[in-house]
Amino acid sequence: MQASKRISTILGGGSDGWEVFMRAREMITEGTPVTELTIGEHDIRTAAPILQDMHRAALGGHTGYASIPGITALRDAIAKRVTERTGVPTKRENVMVTPGGQSALFAAHTAVIDPGDTALYIDPYYATYPGTLRGASAEPLAIKAHASDAFQPRAADIAAVAKGAKSLLVNSPNNPTGVVYSRETLEGIADVCKEHDLWLISDEVYDTQIWEGEHISPRALEGMAERTLVVGSMSKSHAMTGSRIGWVIGPEEMVEHLINLATHTNYGVAGFIQDAALFALELGEDFETEIAEPFRRRRDLAQTVLAGQNVVGVVPNAGAMYMMLDISATGMSGQEFAFALLDAHHIAVMPGESFGKAAAGHIRVAMTIEDTAFVQAMHQLCDFAKEKSGR
Amino acid sequence: MQASKRISTILGGGSDGWEVFMRAREMITEGTPVTELTIGEHDIRTAAPILQDMHRAALGGHTGYASIPGITALRDAIAKRVTERTGVPTKRENVMVTPGGQSALFAAHTAVIDPGDTALYIDPYYATYPGTLRGASAEPLAIKAHASDAFQPRAADIAAVAKGAKSLLVNSPNNPTGVVYSRETLEGIADVCKEHDLWLISDEVYDTQIWEGEHISPRALEGMAERTLVVGSMSKSHAMTGSRIGWVIGPEEMVEHLINLATHTNYGVAGFIQDAALFALELGEDFETEIAEPFRRRRDLAQTVLAGQNVVGVVPNAGAMYMMLDISATGMSGQEFAFALLDAHHIAVMPGESFGKAAAGHIRVAMTIEDTAFVQAMHQLCDFAKEKSGR
Repeated sequence: MQASKRISTILGGGSDGWEVFMRAREMITEGTPVTELTIGEHDIRTAAPILQDMHRAALGGHTGYASIPGITALRDAIAKRVTERTGVPTKRENVMVTPGGQSALFAAHTAVIDPGDTALYIDPYYATYPGTLRGASAEPLAIKAHASDAFQPRAADIAAVAKGAKSLLVNSPNNPTGVVYSRETLEGIADVCKEHDLWLISDEVYDTQIWEGEHISPRALEGMAERTLVVGSMSKSHAMTGSRIGWVIGPEEMVEHLINLATHTNYGVAGFIQDAALFALELGEDFETEIAEPFRRRRDLAQTVLAGQNVVGVVPNAGAMYMMLDISATGMSGQEFAFALLDAHHIAVMPGESFGKAAAGHIRVAMTIEDTAFVQAMHQLCDFAKEKSGR
Repeated sequence: MQASKRISTILGGGSDGWEVFMRAREMITEGTPVTELTIGEHDIRTAAPILQDMHRAALGGHTGYASIPGITALRDAIAKRVTERTGVPTKRENVMVTPGGQSALFAAHTAVIDPGDTALYIDPYYATYPGTLRGASAEPLAIKAHASDAFQPRAADIAAVAKGAKSLLVNSPNNPTGVVYSRETLEGIADVCKEHDLWLISDEVYDTQIWEGEHISPRALEGMAERTLVVGSMSKSHAMTGSRIGWVIGPEEMVEHLINLATHTNYGVAGFIQDAALFALELGEDFETEIAEPFRRRRDLAQTVLAGQNVVGVVPNAGAMYMMLDISATGMSGQEFAFALLDAHHIAVMPGESFGKAAAGHIRVAMTIEDTAFVQAMHQLCDFAKEKSGR
C-alpha cells in the first residue's frame, strides 16, 4: 500500500545530514567514548523545582483534558513576557500554547500555507525546516545567506524570489550559525514581507541566549505584528526540551484558527506541563540568565582558544548555543572534516552541509558539554585543522 | 493578512454542534448547577501511582529530548498488548508513539492522504473527525449509518462512494453511539477496503470498554494488516486523557514515514510521560478493567431505568462510555430536546445532530458522573421525554 506523496517526500531525498551524528552514536554504543558537540541540548536537566511543581499539579488533579489554546494563566504569562521582551503589546488572545516549538513551526505554516504554496526559508537552516514545510504541503524554497556576510541574509536575495510566495521563515538568534540578525537585516526582511505580502514566521526559541548586541523580534517592526507569527518555546530558555511545550504568537484572528487546528490535530498540551511552564516563567529573568550562562561562558572560552590560532575561522556568534567554524583552510568539506575528526580524535561535530548549502566548508559546534572537556576538544579541533591545512 | 484556506475551513462552516455544551458551561459559570452528561472523560483522575512514576522518571533525568518513535520499552509494551488483544503479530517497528489519539488520527491521515484526496468516514462520528480530515487537506466524505441498523455501517453504502477514495475511518467501539461493530460489519468493511484499495484507519481508543460481545480489530482480518492504521491511546483505557499519549499501529514502512512526520511536526512525546505510560501498561488488564468498571455499572443502571418506560429508545450500546438514545417519540429534534432538558431540569446532554446527520432525533448521554446522580438524571430525562411525547 502506498503512503501519501506528502509523507514519503518529507525528507526530500538524498542525505539527511546526520551521518556523522549517527556514526558517533554507533561508536558510543560499541564502547568508544566520543566527545559530542552535536546536540542542541543543555548538559543540565530540567530544574527539580519545576518538576516538583508539575507533580503537584498532576497530583492536584490537573490530569484531564486541559484548555486547548492553553490555560488562561499561562497564556497571560506568555503574553506579558512577550510584551516586556519585545515592546509589542500582546494579549492572551495573541497566544496559542503548543506541544513544543516544532509543533508551533508546523502549525504556523499550516496556518498560512495552502498545498503547493511556496514557503521561503534561509540557508543555513535548522535541520527540520524543509521537512516541516513539506509536511505542511508547501513547496520549500531556500534562500542562501553568505558566509561573507556572516550569514546575515540579504533582503535583495529574498525579494528576488518573493513574488507569489506565501511565507518566509527566519530564525534569530540562529541555529546553526549562532548569528543574531541585525536591525538592518530585519528591517530589510520586514520591507520585503510588506512589499510582497508575505507572512513572516519568526523562530525565536533562542531569544534568551544573546552574547552581544540585542535580540530584536521582527514582530516589533512597523507594520509587522499583523503579518508575523512568532514561534517560542520553553525548551532552550528553561532547559525544558523534553517537556514539549511552546507557543505561537500572532494576530488574534489567526490564533482563533490555530485553536481550531490544535483541536483537530493534537487536542492541546497536558495540563500539568502547562502548570509547570507557568511556574518556570514565574521564576523570572534571573532563572533564564542562569540557564543561558554556561553557553556564554563556553563561548568566551572558545574564543580564547580560537584567538590563539589562524586556521579555523569563526562566524561572529552573538547568540545561541552554537558556533559555526570555517574549516575551509584544510581544503576539506565540512563533512570530510567532521568524519576525519571523529575518526582521529573521537570528537563529533556537525558538518555545515547538514544545514544546507550555504555553510559548506564549515562545521557547527554545539557548546553543550562541560567546560574543561569543551576547551580540550576545541584545542584538539584547532590542532587537527592546523595539521590538515599543512600550515 | 489571509489565513490559509485549509485552516480557515477546518470547521466546515455552520454549527459546530457544541451549543448545548456551551450553554451548560455558561449556566455553571453563572452559578446554576448543571448535571453534565456531555463529556467523554472519566469522573476519576489519573491514578496517583502512575503520576508518581512519571515524577520519578522526571526527577531521574528523563527531561531531555526523548526518542521520537517512542522509547523502546514502551513500543515493545504496546506491541505486546496489541499482539495479545488482537492476535496480530505486532513488533516494535509497527508502533509509533504520538502525543495523544487525536494526533495519531491526524498523522494517520497525513500518511495516506495527499491534498485533495477523498477521505471517507462514518456518520455519526466523533466531533473532530471532519475537521481532522480537512486539517490534513483531505476532502471528507461522510457515509451514513442508519439508526434502523443500530448504526452498524453497510458495506454497500461504503462501496458506493469508495471509488477513487484513499481512506476510510472507522471507530469501534463507537463514539457517539456506544455501538460495537460486529464481525459481519467489519468483514464487509474489509472487503470494500481491499476491493477499492482503501487504507483503513481504525480508531480503537475504546477497546477496553466492551460490555457485550467482543472487540474485533479490523487489522486482524485477512489481508488487512498491510492496509490498516490503528489509532490507540492511553486516555480512555487508563484514565490518562490529560497526559496526551497515544499511538499508531501500522506496517513497518508506514511507521518509518510516521517517524519522519513526527520529527518534523512535533518532535515526539515527553520522556517522563512515555515512562508513565509504560508503567500504566504494566499494571495489566486488571487495572484496565477497573478503569472501565464504572461505565459498565452505569450502563446496567441506565438499562434498568430505560426498561421501565417506553418513550425513549436506546441504541444497543455494547461498548464505550456513551449511550445514544432515540427521543423521536417527543417529536423534537435532538437539539430541541437537549436545550429543553437543559432549561427544564439543568441536565446537559449532546444532541445527536452534534455528531452528523445520521443521529438526528437522538441524544448522546455520557455515563461520566457518579452513579446516584446518573440514575436520577436518567429518570428525569425519561420522565421529561414522556411528558413531551404526550403519552
